[in-house]
Amino acid sequence: MPAALQASAAGIEIATDGVVSVGPAFMTLQAAWTAGVAAMVRAGARVIVDEVFLSGAASQERWRKALDGLDVLWVAVRCDPAVAVGRELARGDRVPGQAASQADVVHEGVVYDLEVDTTHAESLACARTIAAAALTSCGPGA
Amino acid sequence: MPAALQASAAGIEIATDGVVSVGPAFMTLQAAWTAGVAAMVRAGARVIVDEVFLSGAASQERWRKALDGLDVLWVAVRCDPAVAVGRELARGDRVPGQAASQADVVHEGVVYDLEVDTTHAESLACARTIAAAALTSCGPGA
Amino acid sequence: MPAALQASAAGIEIATDGVVSVGPAFMTLQAAWTAGVAAMVRAGARVIVDEVFLSGAASQERWRKALDGLDVLWVAVRCDPAVAVGRELARGDRVPGQAASQADVVHEGVVYDLEVDTTHAESLACARTIAAAALTSCGPGA
Amino acid sequence: MPAALQASAAGIEIATDGVVSVGPAFMTLQAAWTAGVAAMVRAGARVIVDEVFLSGAASQERWRKALDGLDVLWVAVRCDPAVAVGRELARGDRVPGQAASQADVVHEGVVYDLEVDTTHAESLACARTIAAAALTSCGPGA
Repeated sequence: MPAALQASAAGIEIATDGVVSVGPAFMTLQAAWTAGVAAMVRAGARVIVDEVFLSGAASQERWRKALDGLDVLWVAVRCDPAVAVGRELARGDRVPGQAASQADVVHEGVVYDLEVDTTHAESLACARTIAAAALTSCGPGA
Repeated sequence: MPAALQASAAGIEIATDGVVSVGPAFMTLQAAWTAGVAAMVRAGARVIVDEVFLSGAASQERWRKALDGLDVLWVAVRCDPAVAVGRELARGDRVPGQAASQADVVHEGVVYDLEVDTTHAESLACARTIAAAALTSCGPGA
Repeated sequence: MPAALQASAAGIEIATDGVVSVGPAFMTLQAAWTAGVAAMVRAGARVIVDEVFLSGAASQERWRKALDGLDVLWVAVRCDPAVAVGRELARGDRVPGQAASQADVVHEGVVYDLEVDTTHAESLACARTIAAAALTSCGPGA
Repeated sequence: MPAALQASAAGIEIATDGVVSVGPAFMTLQAAWTAGVAAMVRAGARVIVDEVFLSGAASQERWRKALDGLDVLWVAVRCDPAVAVGRELARGDRVPGQAASQADVVHEGVVYDLEVDTTHAESLACARTIAAAALTSCGPGA
């Protein structure tokens, strides 16, 4: 994203309480990004998209339309909000409040094929669970 | 690129003398990447691709086909090979030899709209030259 | 450490199985580093040293001598070796084998004031446990 | 520096115009840092300190006292302010204005053994000039 769209109402803003707002220019770029990723998959690449569904079900619907006809494994990566807030603080490079404000809304109305929970599970264990499910649902791929 | 394709003959290898070799799996991913970037531009994004044309004119031809019908500004970013070798060393994170082995071949047979030379010009000055030319050739965009 | 001492028998070497060896030039630099950190603390700074005791009790003894007369809180940061190996793999930037080869030896004969275990505890929780103990043993400091 | 001292009047503040202010807690830590670096050199390490002399000659005087009796090569790293401002912008991760506000004051009253100018010279060439002078003035070292 161009620097000019950062901290702009047309682009993306992260308020001092960690709430993220996006504007029309961000939405245009997001749609272009989504279309491009779909084209990569149609051309034979296997792609992992790590996305924060700020609009919950509406975010998923945008991706679902772009990925029409493709094999997709929808995975929820959950984390107890209190633990996520602690990890946000420990990272040291985030505007505090994002974890708390996003913890629930990003899953609202979203339908998943698989769920992992990083509250107590190791990242590697979650990754292996996802990889095994992807192999089953999407095939071995390129 | 998956870790499994790094340092693999099917993926990409950087020899101890800095020569880079790519295999069939890399070429498949590269084609998918190119197709996806083209789709992003068709969907309204303005994209800067910073690419090392390891196969010179053939590399450009692959991009030219993928970008068919789109406004493209082809820019050569040149640097005196001796200076490039010094910068490679100063970076400290590269396999020495890449700068020397790539300096000439990446421009072989490639046709440009604009050329900048970072040997003596500041990065910012080069960037401004490119931005001005892009505005003329591709319009103000989104 | 100078680049010339990396991957040198006089400096530090990380073998393909992840075993780390250090040479005489490394030991000289390590002693200078230790002396300098002690001087910083004597001058009023409160310092956290995150150290891998490759020589176990002998490593601790070197630090103990350098820190003579200063308030020190010795903290063991433990992790189940199998979990540490998984985290090493997930990081993606380490020579595999270091976690396994170091898991036990770094604690051999070392005497601690406090122990935390990151196998199941969050980093932030461990940090808070350590901070509370440091406040008690070393005072509020500068 | 502890997070609590960042953006605090007692620690260090970078104003929206790029002017840097430091407070008493920062000065204490700075003195401890300086004393520790001097102790490292006395213990046999050869150290490169890359410092911005926000107080010009007074900054140098603090270091001169701490390094009393040691071989020091004082090097000015200059850059045309207009070029420095362009590089600051190109980096993309700085509060704009620091380069302009510091360009002159950091050299005010400072006495050097050697001067390099990065306006037109390559970093590697400057580094080699410095290394050659250090070898002459400080000896080959450890």
